Amino acid sequence: MASMGTFIAKTPSTPHPIPNAFKPQLPSRLRLVSTLRLPSAATAGAAKGRNPTPRRPGVSCSLIEPDGGRLVDLVAPEGTAREALRREAAGCPQIKLSRIDLEWVHVLSEGWASPLGGFMREAEFLQTLHFNCLRLGDGSVVNMSVPIVLAIDDAQKRAIGDLRRVALVDAQGKPVAFLSDIEIYKHNKEERIARTWGTTAPGLPYVEEAITKAGNWLIGGDLEVIERIKYNDGLDQYRLSPVELREEFSRRNADAVFAFQLRNPVHNGHALLMTDTRRRLLEMGYKNPVLLLHPLGGFTKADDVPLSWRMKQHEKVLEDGVLNPETTVVAIFPSPMHYAGPTEVQWHAKSRINAGANFYIVGRDPAGMSHPIEKRDLYDADHGKKVLSMAPGLQRLNILPFKVAAYDTKQKKMAFFDPSRPQDFLFISGTKMRTLAKNRENPPDGFMCPGGWKVLVDYYESMETQEGNKFREAVPA
Amino acid sequence: MASMGTFIAKTPSTPHPIPNAFKPQLPSRLRLVSTLRLPSAATAGAAKGRNPTPRRPGVSCSLIEPDGGRLVDLVAPEGTAREALRREAAGCPQIKLSRIDLEWVHVLSEGWASPLGGFMREAEFLQTLHFNCLRLGDGSVVNMSVPIVLAIDDAQKRAIGDLRRVALVDAQGKPVAFLSDIEIYKHNKEERIARTWGTTAPGLPYVEEAITKAGNWLIGGDLEVIERIKYNDGLDQYRLSPVELREEFSRRNADAVFAFQLRNPVHNGHALLMTDTRRRLLEMGYKNPVLLLHPLGGFTKADDVPLSWRMKQHEKVLEDGVLNPETTVVAIFPSPMHYAGPTEVQWHAKSRINAGANFYIVGRDPAGMSHPIEKRDLYDADHGKKVLSMAPGLQRLNILPFKVAAYDTKQKKMAFFDPSRPQDFLFISGTKMRTLAKNRENPPDGFMCPGGWKVLVDYYESMETQEGNKFREAVPA
Repeated sequence: MASMGTFIAKTPSTPHPIPNAFKPQLPSRLRLVSTLRLPSAATAGAAKGRNPTPRRPGVSCSLIEPDGGRLVDLVAPEGTAREALRREAAGCPQIKLSRIDLEWVHVLSEGWASPLGGFMREAEFLQTLHFNCLRLGDGSVVNMSVPIVLAIDDAQKRAIGDLRRVALVDAQGKPVAFLSDIEIYKHNKEERIARTWGTTAPGLPYVEEAITKAGNWLIGGDLEVIERIKYNDGLDQYRLSPVELREEFSRRNADAVFAFQLRNPVHNGHALLMTDTRRRLLEMGYKNPVLLLHPLGGFTKADDVPLSWRMKQHEKVLEDGVLNPETTVVAIFPSPMHYAGPTEVQWHAKSRINAGANFYIVGRDPAGMSHPIEKRDLYDADHGKKVLSMAPGLQRLNILPFKVAAYDTKQKKMAFFDPSRPQDFLFISGTKMRTLAKNRENPPDGFMCPGGWKVLVDYYESMETQEGNKFREAVPA
Repeated sequence: MASMGTFIAKTPSTPHPIPNAFKPQLPSRLRLVSTLRLPSAATAGAAKGRNPTPRRPGVSCSLIEPDGGRLVDLVAPEGTAREALRREAAGCPQIKLSRIDLEWVHVLSEGWASPLGGFMREAEFLQTLHFNCLRLGDGSVVNMSVPIVLAIDDAQKRAIGDLRRVALVDAQGKPVAFLSDIEIYKHNKEERIARTWGTTAPGLPYVEEAITKAGNWLIGGDLEVIERIKYNDGLDQYRLSPVELREEFSRRNADAVFAFQLRNPVHNGHALLMTDTRRRLLEMGYKNPVLLLHPLGGFTKADDVPLSWRMKQHEKVLEDGVLNPETTVVAIFPSPMHYAGPTEVQWHAKSRINAGANFYIVGRDPAGMSHPIEKRDLYDADHGKKVLSMAPGLQRLNILPFKVAAYDTKQKKMAFFDPSRPQDFLFISGTKMRTLAKNRENPPDGFMCPGGWKVLVDYYESMETQEGNKFREAVPA
């Protein structure tokens, strides 16, 4: 992945483990955020003037402040402390983490959900479900729209009994983290699903994967992660933490950071949009707007293109030079995907504030999908943008609505839709794109660079080989 | 209703129509709230020092400020303006209001939902569904947890076309109100229900009555009501508006107002709680706390005791002298009931701020009911209290959690439950109370005054006569 390598080459050359100099200099026991209590108004005022993350001397910082005033870092210090935690885990009640649970541990540990300091206790869960935000001790409000919770079953609850601390272990039984000062409360799945997705219809991917079969209790508490979460899938170097991203933006002297969340292959319409956004920001007077191209790396539904193929596709698109390496940072966002439309888009935006972005590009029907049992989209295509623009705790984030790009058959390239000559534009849906790639047919010239398209064709070919299914689907009109 | 007469005797003797002197002196066209835009910070600061409602000279006002700074009043001035509106209605597209629609027109017109100035447009609807609150133009937030919306069907939408103003008429076709600067948007019933109730199970009373059969569009806009809403059911004199309630509290020199929302018969446990709350407020240093005993008067489910019988029952209970007429105001709250638990209790509390209450008593499982298809309560009994205590826009309301009262078999009266001697207490559920009354059996002495109990027995007898059903149910243990 040469081209992405150049994009992130200016980040510390060995990002894992990150040198201590780059990490917030807070002893883990002094973190303020685990109880969502902030310092008093006076202290908060003082904190406001301070850099949200410690910087190397001489590096200026004009990045947006993280939610709650500073980034949560829940990873134990390197050295003997980690060994002690691993030993302690053997004598603790242990909760085995699913892949999605582990992704949330990752998200929490690096402060994407700052100031949340662990899996939600009931007060945080209820505020998330009812208000999509959390009120802090000083009365201020941060956005928090999706529940970040850990489910346990009756037997696990009994095993924990009155203990206040449990160990979290991975699928192989290896200790990953601890949850302390725990609170166990009822997991009303129906209510959680209804309030998060606005439907209880069967077939929601995240629900089927992570809720339906989960236990009837939720366990919240303060999280402490033994070491940084890695997946050893060849992509860990792209999983930059919010601290590392902020370092990188500061190093590049970014005076605006605009985030582009995606979970699909990048076509030239996306590239046009990103380039055009930078142009608009320059026009607004910013000197050096930097793009955070930020594919989602956690759980996705079965018919989405898997992360490893998307990263290959992004690499080819970037090699094509459509985006400028000097002003683009590519990294993986570790969150799993809810497909919860207007509720989830708030999470996608809020977490990017914590990574340093002060502009967020929002498209048509963000985080949306088809209704699982009715023949319609689950969400109104405009609701995501509208809800995002009104969401509590996101007022300081600049929302940039996505302009509609389509294939201009006259110019033979992706262009912004011109309503004065609609007959010239061809809309190529995700479904159409996937079907063309499955059938090894080519999209119109200029839709996507040939190298990127070949990755998609290769992916579907590998799927067919895997499934032994060579059937060619009809391309939707 | 002699005793309630004495309770409200000190309100203006002819509350309908209320004298202009008691009404906010704002030309209806100058209302600020219809767009939910508030004056600038400087103006808002000035407004803060002003009485929320004009007072008669010499009457001091220390009541809590209404949401948004002043009470909405959407009733047209008396006189020629009303005649002109009635004439105009003949030439307008007309929307026929259901009983529940009319109750919402009533609620909106008197400012219970201040600063909301009419049926919700989409921006308000989305904020209500996702955040349970509305952000005002000055950045402040008011609570708004239940959608106050008006549904229309495809034919009505077509008839309205591009017009900006429609007339609302009652079941007899009589013009009631106008909706101006209208916005028509999709009524996604499934999403509305899921986000409001946390379930989409069939059998929710409000859903079946007002949503399932309603149209697929919602119409929002600025409401103007031709004359004050009346029901001519012999109870209109108890339907005091927020303005009238504030007048009454000021006249009594109340320095604290505590609201008790109910939709059930009052037993001595309720009375104990209300008396005890006043005692606690006096201990806190208040000189004259006044109780607002505020039965809900709008739509209720079929097995609730109807309003007219509840008012008779309250009268008998009050005649008994359990509550002090000098410190109690009885009035009807005109809202329909959602049975939406933690979501709805916020509405019950918020609307009472607008009526002048700064203390709100919240019980176990407020606005709750049984799950319509599962054998459990729909909501966790503690969630209402918890959600209320964290709800945006309600921080300035003091929440008083309900103490558990039960029948003390030793003292032979209702008393606060004493966990040191649980065996002495008898819990008499609403179901048990209803079944005893249906069977014309008596509850234990001291549970409810005999006159109040007789009203319940009479009600169930009238039901049986009506239904020709004399079957006696078993009393639950």
